[in-house]
Amino acid sequence: MPKLKPEELQSRRKEIIDAARACFLRSGFHQTTTDEICREACITPGGLYHYFASKEEIINAVIQERARRIVERLETITQGAGDLRSTGREMASFIMEAMRSPRVDNATGLDVEIWAESLRNEKLADMNREGWRLRRDWLEELIKRGVSEGLYSDRVDPRGLAHLFIALSSGVRVGRLMLGDEFETEKVLGALFLMYTGRLINRAPAASRPEVSRPEA
Amino acid sequence: MPKLKPEELQSRRKEIIDAARACFLRSGFHQTTTDEICREACITPGGLYHYFASKEEIINAVIQERARRIVERLETITQGAGDLRSTGREMASFIMEAMRSPRVDNATGLDVEIWAESLRNEKLADMNREGWRLRRDWLEELIKRGVSEGLYSDRVDPRGLAHLFIALSSGVRVGRLMLGDEFETEKVLGALFLMYTGRLINRAPAASRPEVSRPEA
Repeated sequence: MPKLKPEELQSRRKEIIDAARACFLRSGFHQTTTDEICREACITPGGLYHYFASKEEIINAVIQERARRIVERLETITQGAGDLRSTGREMASFIMEAMRSPRVDNATGLDVEIWAESLRNEKLADMNREGWRLRRDWLEELIKRGVSEGLYSDRVDPRGLAHLFIALSSGVRVGRLMLGDEFETEKVLGALFLMYTGRLINRAPAASRPEVSRPEA
Repeated sequence: MPKLKPEELQSRRKEIIDAARACFLRSGFHQTTTDEICREACITPGGLYHYFASKEEIINAVIQERARRIVERLETITQGAGDLRSTGREMASFIMEAMRSPRVDNATGLDVEIWAESLRNEKLADMNREGWRLRRDWLEELIKRGVSEGLYSDRVDPRGLAHLFIALSSGVRVGRLMLGDEFETEKVLGALFLMYTGRLINRAPAASRPEVSRPEA
């Protein structure tokens, strides 16, 4: 194996992770063999072993890399936008865009496989939790800012809301994966938007509002 | 095989479905063998074959039976409660109760296995969609009532909201399964309740509200 500088090792490692992810998305977690990953990454099994000792280590790296990239992309959005409200709007359109992409179903399929595998593989379950925490911690900080700046009610638990956001994203992606076009993602996101902005449930009818004007004394 | 009346056949069939579900929840979808189901249901393989031709037919029956029971339980709640708002409250506490049960994780685990299996098995994917539709159609009808009675905004798409509710329930259950106690389901449901009732986001501050009183002419 030729001597590589640390930054070259790092970028080669990333290439392998990308190649492995492409294989997992295409063939599924179980069906993907180490040989397939080697072919995709243009590396020999011996070369691959230099970076990752097992398929488990590869899937771990894929999970962490993905969580890291999601956070990175979200950070680009929050830094580019102005105040928190416009950040929210930017993030909403980013999510809408991502949900519209046909590639999202492949990614959800891989998630579902990882979840199923986590049921019997404690190590994978740990890695999966780490990926979840990475996104959760980042969202939690953003929500705390939202509370301190008065955007969110101070009655909300920031970690609870962060978990809710991740759960929502997982659930909507699963629905889309299961039902296909019948799920009508746009309409689901429309309903979510109404709920999020507090306009799903009608206020009590005007008749039952307390009177504001007083009769003349 | 002894001659059984139709209602006896029906109740024996239900017993087998319950036994199979218990096996699937305990051992997982893949690990469960037909033998295990026979032992649990106290039936011979020949007897089992009289009711179900394959393990696939059994899992199909388990999925349908479960969706049917969820709808049945929800119907009991809506018939028992008074108006739609109190029905909503009853359903919320039913969901809270269900989410608190330690058994919910086993059920979610089975769902996750079924989703993963659906990726490679079109027949199972169809059955899964059927189970989803059964719940969806029922929720959609309830939401339509909610819109016509003025509880929900008439801008909401009833089917979109029904899909959102199912996605939410799936996502929260997956989060709980993955993160365990760290997920803090109660706090997540608290955040959801704030969002659902429109109290997550603070209204614009009073200073920016349009003036109501006019200066004297």
